[in-house]
Amino acid sequence: MKIAVVGLGYWGPNLVRNFLSTEGVEGVVGVDSRERQTERTKKKLPMMELAHSYQEVLRRTDIGAVVLATPISAHHPLGMEALRAGKHLLVEKPLAATTREAQELVELARKMNLTLMVDHTFVYTGAVRKIKEMVSSGRLGDILYFDSVRVNLGLFQHDSNVIWDLAPHDLSIMEYVIDKKPVAVSALGANHFNEYEDMAYISVLFPDNVIAHFHVNWLSPVKVRKILIGGTRHMLVYDDMEPSEKVKVYDKGVDVKSQESLYETLIQYRTGDMFAPHLDHTEALSLLAAEFVRCIKTGKKPTTDGTSGLNVVRILEAASQSLKDQGRLIQLDDFGG
Amino acid sequence: MKIAVVGLGYWGPNLVRNFLSTEGVEGVVGVDSRERQTERTKKKLPMMELAHSYQEVLRRTDIGAVVLATPISAHHPLGMEALRAGKHLLVEKPLAATTREAQELVELARKMNLTLMVDHTFVYTGAVRKIKEMVSSGRLGDILYFDSVRVNLGLFQHDSNVIWDLAPHDLSIMEYVIDKKPVAVSALGANHFNEYEDMAYISVLFPDNVIAHFHVNWLSPVKVRKILIGGTRHMLVYDDMEPSEKVKVYDKGVDVKSQESLYETLIQYRTGDMFAPHLDHTEALSLLAAEFVRCIKTGKKPTTDGTSGLNVVRILEAASQSLKDQGRLIQLDDFGG
Amino acid sequence: MKIAVVGLGYWGPNLVRNFLSTEGVEGVVGVDSRERQTERTKKKLPMMELAHSYQEVLRRTDIGAVVLATPISAHHPLGMEALRAGKHLLVEKPLAATTREAQELVELARKMNLTLMVDHTFVYTGAVRKIKEMVSSGRLGDILYFDSVRVNLGLFQHDSNVIWDLAPHDLSIMEYVIDKKPVAVSALGANHFNEYEDMAYISVLFPDNVIAHFHVNWLSPVKVRKILIGGTRHMLVYDDMEPSEKVKVYDKGVDVKSQESLYETLIQYRTGDMFAPHLDHTEALSLLAAEFVRCIKTGKKPTTDGTSGLNVVRILEAASQSLKDQGRLIQLDDFGG
Amino acid sequence: MKIAVVGLGYWGPNLVRNFLSTEGVEGVVGVDSRERQTERTKKKLPMMELAHSYQEVLRRTDIGAVVLATPISAHHPLGMEALRAGKHLLVEKPLAATTREAQELVELARKMNLTLMVDHTFVYTGAVRKIKEMVSSGRLGDILYFDSVRVNLGLFQHDSNVIWDLAPHDLSIMEYVIDKKPVAVSALGANHFNEYEDMAYISVLFPDNVIAHFHVNWLSPVKVRKILIGGTRHMLVYDDMEPSEKVKVYDKGVDVKSQESLYETLIQYRTGDMFAPHLDHTEALSLLAAEFVRCIKTGKKPTTDGTSGLNVVRILEAASQSLKDQGRLIQLDDFGG
Repeated sequence: MKIAVVGLGYWGPNLVRNFLSTEGVEGVVGVDSRERQTERTKKKLPMMELAHSYQEVLRRTDIGAVVLATPISAHHPLGMEALRAGKHLLVEKPLAATTREAQELVELARKMNLTLMVDHTFVYTGAVRKIKEMVSSGRLGDILYFDSVRVNLGLFQHDSNVIWDLAPHDLSIMEYVIDKKPVAVSALGANHFNEYEDMAYISVLFPDNVIAHFHVNWLSPVKVRKILIGGTRHMLVYDDMEPSEKVKVYDKGVDVKSQESLYETLIQYRTGDMFAPHLDHTEALSLLAAEFVRCIKTGKKPTTDGTSGLNVVRILEAASQSLKDQGRLIQLDDFGG
Repeated sequence: MKIAVVGLGYWGPNLVRNFLSTEGVEGVVGVDSRERQTERTKKKLPMMELAHSYQEVLRRTDIGAVVLATPISAHHPLGMEALRAGKHLLVEKPLAATTREAQELVELARKMNLTLMVDHTFVYTGAVRKIKEMVSSGRLGDILYFDSVRVNLGLFQHDSNVIWDLAPHDLSIMEYVIDKKPVAVSALGANHFNEYEDMAYISVLFPDNVIAHFHVNWLSPVKVRKILIGGTRHMLVYDDMEPSEKVKVYDKGVDVKSQESLYETLIQYRTGDMFAPHLDHTEALSLLAAEFVRCIKTGKKPTTDGTSGLNVVRILEAASQSLKDQGRLIQLDDFGG
Repeated sequence: MKIAVVGLGYWGPNLVRNFLSTEGVEGVVGVDSRERQTERTKKKLPMMELAHSYQEVLRRTDIGAVVLATPISAHHPLGMEALRAGKHLLVEKPLAATTREAQELVELARKMNLTLMVDHTFVYTGAVRKIKEMVSSGRLGDILYFDSVRVNLGLFQHDSNVIWDLAPHDLSIMEYVIDKKPVAVSALGANHFNEYEDMAYISVLFPDNVIAHFHVNWLSPVKVRKILIGGTRHMLVYDDMEPSEKVKVYDKGVDVKSQESLYETLIQYRTGDMFAPHLDHTEALSLLAAEFVRCIKTGKKPTTDGTSGLNVVRILEAASQSLKDQGRLIQLDDFGG
Repeated sequence: MKIAVVGLGYWGPNLVRNFLSTEGVEGVVGVDSRERQTERTKKKLPMMELAHSYQEVLRRTDIGAVVLATPISAHHPLGMEALRAGKHLLVEKPLAATTREAQELVELARKMNLTLMVDHTFVYTGAVRKIKEMVSSGRLGDILYFDSVRVNLGLFQHDSNVIWDLAPHDLSIMEYVIDKKPVAVSALGANHFNEYEDMAYISVLFPDNVIAHFHVNWLSPVKVRKILIGGTRHMLVYDDMEPSEKVKVYDKGVDVKSQESLYETLIQYRTGDMFAPHLDHTEALSLLAAEFVRCIKTGKKPTTDGTSGLNVVRILEAASQSLKDQGRLIQLDDFGG
């Protein structure tokens, strides 16, 4: 089976490179209507074949799967065509531009019995896999909150706000780590230079008073990529800018002692050791590529399947709606469908 | 003139110590109904006189000013009595428990022609004074946003949520630095152990798309006290946990070039030197004490006068209201008065 | 038993304060020939009694122990008098100005059967006690090296070089942690403003290729207090400038595999988790004060006894000798005695 | 002109890649006797031509220059052959295995009127060029000391100690930045796993009490690459592990005031702003490649010419000698020649 990568801009060549060294892949075919991008990528990655058009890709029977690294607005039309042509599909994050589009991709893939996967790269990093493991094993206890900051001096996009650019990373991590269904979303932001928001704060509410919050910002003088997760037993900090100890787990928390005779609960805090687990440094994208191929062969569902992608898009759309509405709380149930 | 400090718990002794070495103060009189607190403070600060009751303080003519370091709920009743007794008044932050209470204090002080000051300590630190200077001089350009994080593993209060405990610090800095009137407030939070929120996110909206945002949290494994301020010319980071370079100014920003023939604006970012100004290390509280005494003598308005205190209380009350209402945007105009 | 603290300059008042709250101490008597220092200390610590002269201290039978916080050159004469007068003795670091002086103090204390202790404060910190525990328990494996950096923009001393000012801290930690007898010392340094070296590098050689190294410097723009200890099983970093995680233990090291058929040994490195143990935050000086009193009562040898002090002074003297001799290696056996 | 890169191991491919995009280079020819290295490099860099042998390289008239990225021991024999064949020469650091070898290369290049350059890459980084600029312009004042730490958990070499592996980087920076001739060298170190030292401390003495010191270590659990430079007017820290502000300049120092009537000089320290200049991020190796080509064409002397390489090798050899001699101070005048 060969794999076609559509779009050879910023991220496409990384996908080409990784699929070129993925077991079970017999060839990688690149396609992009822009001649300069195509040439530049071919020069760097001479093992990549080229196709002249997307139609050629869809027609070729040696190509079993399509990877979309195009602008967001093209995900749905190109993705639907690929699925209709019987190709397995991997889509750059976010999966689609609206919840409805994402749902249509999920449904068509199910009907055609094809693998649909979304490139939530961070889910495959050693750091996030370790965090998931610690949450699943109960080491952190019950999750109390998830707080994320992703800010830097950013390249302004000409077709979307900062939420669609930066938040998919952190929302996909949240979606993977927190095993609960979010119920509502609120977002406030500001635009200073054109019509698109260049900074925003998103809150996602879960049952049982669990709250997730995201600060995304293209106007920060310093680059911060930091997630705090508070649990009843342990708390952790994931700082992606740290060269070595990216994940630190603190034996810190709050002990609640019920006191019968008193009207108030006694709350004390507890502070102990800190622990930074060794993390696997395998390139996340190579693990993702291997999982895509493995799922195609076995029919197994990918970790970041279409439904993960849909969940993230629903929050993005609700957040954008809330932004326009000055932070009005949007209930997620059936939103955008 | 002598000064009476009411409440010798955690913060009161700091106020006593500073007023003891403030020029123009002839004596400091401490008072607290709790015997143990009184004794402990007297032992550490033997130069402090003691009064037996608040009524004695109000009666004594050698005492010209009262400093309240009591629980928030006592600020208004004790403060009103002090003003009625003709004493100048310095109140621990926040000024009062409600906007209406704060207004009454402000009005009575004005009517009585007495100095009313609020202890927004951070405003007197070398770091915040330097920031104010850079904003006022135009060095930062127009302010675009103000983002604050103040989180740690915190002592749970038994009578208030995390907003009233931690946010006054950052709101008072914002109030001092941003020379605009905020128009609306929204807040979302969560409580996990008792009825009071232990973490919250507050947004404050200003005209011209300027936004301020505050993360306050008693459940963080790490202590963070960091403020980002984005301006059109420069941006700055104020990290109060840094031992030496607390304020860093970045020659970074966004250049907007209007292009007549194109429908879109060209936005580019610019990156240059970083600069960490030398900061004055004088203890903030000693500057505040000196300013209080100077204002009493000259009739000049303190930097952190009653109106500053009222502005902060109004936002705190609106934020609490919004918290109860799941983040509903509260208009500040006339709110709480 | 009362305790006399001699010298109320920079460090003396800290000793007074700690002994005032040490169990078993019935009173603390301060003495200093400089009136201003005496008055200032008395004002801050009114519970402290005053003596008019050192002779009075030696004569008084209610005073059982003397604590010397004087300039180094006074340690030996005052200390010898105290021991002769039958007083137990605690001496500020370094114990004396020469090895011979230190030996005389150790010998006289032994002959008089009195407790002699040196104030190697760092040995009593939570961080250093934890490090000692990890070394003793074998957790670090065999120690390979000890590397220390203690630099800052320093107050120039008028009577000694940077070695005698800064290195005693780190040498006392080394002396406590490494259970081996050093064999040789070498030091290189430079003086730029007066006759005393303002920066220096000291190497201390142990048997089995174990090496300790110290960088002390009064001309550094940044403050660094960092010790690396390499062991065969684990390695650690002790960074005293870190607000919380001062000690970090790394599961990193080198595995040596002997390979019979090959002429060379295969050396591979190993990298695993990092661990920051919770540290006791009790003030080091209060533990030291308690130990002094306990040792006086029980006759037990203090952790930092006269011999520890002597060991440190011998290295300081050898390093000073090497400094003058452009780094010539000085054998420690019998040096300076 | 074409350029031949000899040795396609770890560093060679970087040189190939950079020369492939250097103006004035008509082709890059790679050669390595190890088939696997050659194939792997050809696959990644298909624009590179291949030669079958070094002899072919020397014979070919289209090849004007040779770049040696071989083990150190081959630098001299291969380099001498290249110069004899009339090729310009760029050699990986260190220039040669002994001072005598380095001298022979320098002399032959001079006689043949060929460009001889050494790959002291760090000299071409934005950070080091900025440091040089600040030293040259007098901004730092007179240099007082140069302190370097380069430690990590390192790959053990099978044919040399840690000095020859790590110290050339920092010695070449020192050689570039300090405009003085060093007079003596001392080094102490230890080997723990085989015959080669895995950690060492090197001191380099200059006239006027200027001292440089280097800590190199393969057994550190943390990676540190930090240089402190103390000057009479300013001091700086160059931390290569910092993602953005690698160079920080401190307006800190020491003011010396001569006081006629007093026997002692008054030394006070001064502390002011900190400044982190914006650094050029151009890849150092591409600047080095461009300079090599430019010097070949113009006959100009490269910044890191043969003499720079010789100066570094002389210190390395003297340090190795001192290591064997337990830190004996080696005078550099005529050493090793």
